[in-house]
Amino acid sequence: MDLDVLRGSEGALDGPVRVAIDAMGGDHAPDEVVIGATDWARVNPGAQLLLVGDEARITPFFEGAQPSNLTVVHASEAIAMDEQPAAAIRSKRDASVNVAMRLVREGKADAMVTAGHTGAGVASAIINLGRLKGVDRPALAVQLVTDSGPMVLLDIGATTDSTGQNLFQYAHMGTIFAEQVLGVKDPTVALLSIGEEGGKGEMRVQEATELLLASKLRFIGNVEGKDLPKHPADVIVSDATVGNVTIKFFEGLSSFIFDQLRTEFKRWPLGPIGYAFMRPGINRIRRRFDYERLGGAPLLGVKGTVLITHGRARRRMIGFALDVGAAAARQRIPDRIADALG
Amino acid sequence: MDLDVLRGSEGALDGPVRVAIDAMGGDHAPDEVVIGATDWARVNPGAQLLLVGDEARITPFFEGAQPSNLTVVHASEAIAMDEQPAAAIRSKRDASVNVAMRLVREGKADAMVTAGHTGAGVASAIINLGRLKGVDRPALAVQLVTDSGPMVLLDIGATTDSTGQNLFQYAHMGTIFAEQVLGVKDPTVALLSIGEEGGKGEMRVQEATELLLASKLRFIGNVEGKDLPKHPADVIVSDATVGNVTIKFFEGLSSFIFDQLRTEFKRWPLGPIGYAFMRPGINRIRRRFDYERLGGAPLLGVKGTVLITHGRARRRMIGFALDVGAAAARQRIPDRIADALG
Repeated sequence: MDLDVLRGSEGALDGPVRVAIDAMGGDHAPDEVVIGATDWARVNPGAQLLLVGDEARITPFFEGAQPSNLTVVHASEAIAMDEQPAAAIRSKRDASVNVAMRLVREGKADAMVTAGHTGAGVASAIINLGRLKGVDRPALAVQLVTDSGPMVLLDIGATTDSTGQNLFQYAHMGTIFAEQVLGVKDPTVALLSIGEEGGKGEMRVQEATELLLASKLRFIGNVEGKDLPKHPADVIVSDATVGNVTIKFFEGLSSFIFDQLRTEFKRWPLGPIGYAFMRPGINRIRRRFDYERLGGAPLLGVKGTVLITHGRARRRMIGFALDVGAAAARQRIPDRIADALG
Repeated sequence: MDLDVLRGSEGALDGPVRVAIDAMGGDHAPDEVVIGATDWARVNPGAQLLLVGDEARITPFFEGAQPSNLTVVHASEAIAMDEQPAAAIRSKRDASVNVAMRLVREGKADAMVTAGHTGAGVASAIINLGRLKGVDRPALAVQLVTDSGPMVLLDIGATTDSTGQNLFQYAHMGTIFAEQVLGVKDPTVALLSIGEEGGKGEMRVQEATELLLASKLRFIGNVEGKDLPKHPADVIVSDATVGNVTIKFFEGLSSFIFDQLRTEFKRWPLGPIGYAFMRPGINRIRRRFDYERLGGAPLLGVKGTVLITHGRARRRMIGFALDVGAAAARQRIPDRIADALG
């Protein structure tokens, strides 16, 4: 198992890709977001970047050298991480995340990226962009790359308390995403659950199982947590809490294991010698578990390309998030899901 | 984070510890279970082992050398992994798991261990032993050892579709377990959820939050998956699906990362040289992630000591499971939970 960014550039847009980023969202906003975004604009002169937020707080970071492909779009409000998301999104019409979302709706941006509160991003997308026909609740999808090819895990945080019907729709969206965007032929689908046996698991998993068995999707049954690194299916469907805890545990555990290795490599005298020999190999493995390279997760099921990145993202991860946002914009994911569902 | 078996022997029993094991439960039953149990009896001459199952299928494994502290208790039926657990437990009164459970109820065994279907083990415990007063649903607890001491995660698979009230009771049982059995002073409790903010997460987590805030437990709020390796609290409470996927993903991911390391260590010519220097360090880390050493998970909330081990357990893990079962029997966990709840 591995992490990787969206690839490919099929379905290219007319003209340069235009990505909006919520400059005020995230634990390290606006500074790390603005610095990361400005750096990205500099190394991607063919793209247009729209930096959305409080102009007075953003412009000092340019230090007089604003890239020509970077435009600041002023937004007078911002959503804090501890606000009740749906209420804040409704009451703060001019919040940066809402303004960025409307740039997508109005066709002024091809995609938007936010490191802000996930719930706020999802609520803003639903209110400002709307849901695709046939989708009751959107889902956040993360792409993992395994030795057997790409694997999509969804939902990792858009919709809590999902129903069996919701899970069924995620399976559908995940299949379209895997097929249309990642190029997987006839993707297989599995439900992430407590046991492999069909009779096991919570009610919504059992309900989704019946819907999936009666559908045309290539459903292969339940998979367990231990199977995930082995690519048990192309599309792995779960409730938001299960998916979110899993992907964040992956992040925490990977860091932890590498911390352990670092400790051993520092253990005098054999550790540093071993490390001198093993450095290329360790770096190869470390790269596979580099969480920041993931960039972020596309929100599937809304009428626009929305990418939600880590609340803790700093400048480097913001750059990866913009890479993924630009790639997703080129791939017109919402259009493809709408076409396939319709 | 690390795995470790239950320690200590406070509250010693009168006489030798008597552990019953379901010889017919698990993917590799009866052979691996019987071989592992027989080996365990040989190296633990001070313990009494009750091997419960089909006598005709069990005795050939002794090859004429049955340890004197091992007694076979015949059971004419067994539960298969694919049976509907609650129904099978009710219809097969003489199933090995039911017979072993009744040995505990009748005071003929101090603890029982099963590698069979988790749902069947839980159903059998509820029917044959009954729930403790004040406990609506039992929970499976796993003990992880971190650099900051032991940490309990529950539920990892006893009760699907838990309510906020169930989670609240798990918090209570987990606290008692941490305090009374693991010796943690004033254990802290957290809910495993999708975000740290109190407003985030599914309905049952929000309900449990209100109950916990109004209680005397040392509730510290929500923790995310990424925090788990850092010991964010002494007791981590989750719904069964979340806990089960997490702990099994831990198992799968640890194996995966060590497979990656093995590949790099075999990469000629630097890998083998690096490994020669790093072997002690790598083995130290590997030992920390050795899933089998966990043994199994005690089922909290029923009137008897029940330990559920991995369905895929082979002889080595069966030995660890019996170690944990014997330790748990000595610690009289159900009595302590009952005392503290009452």
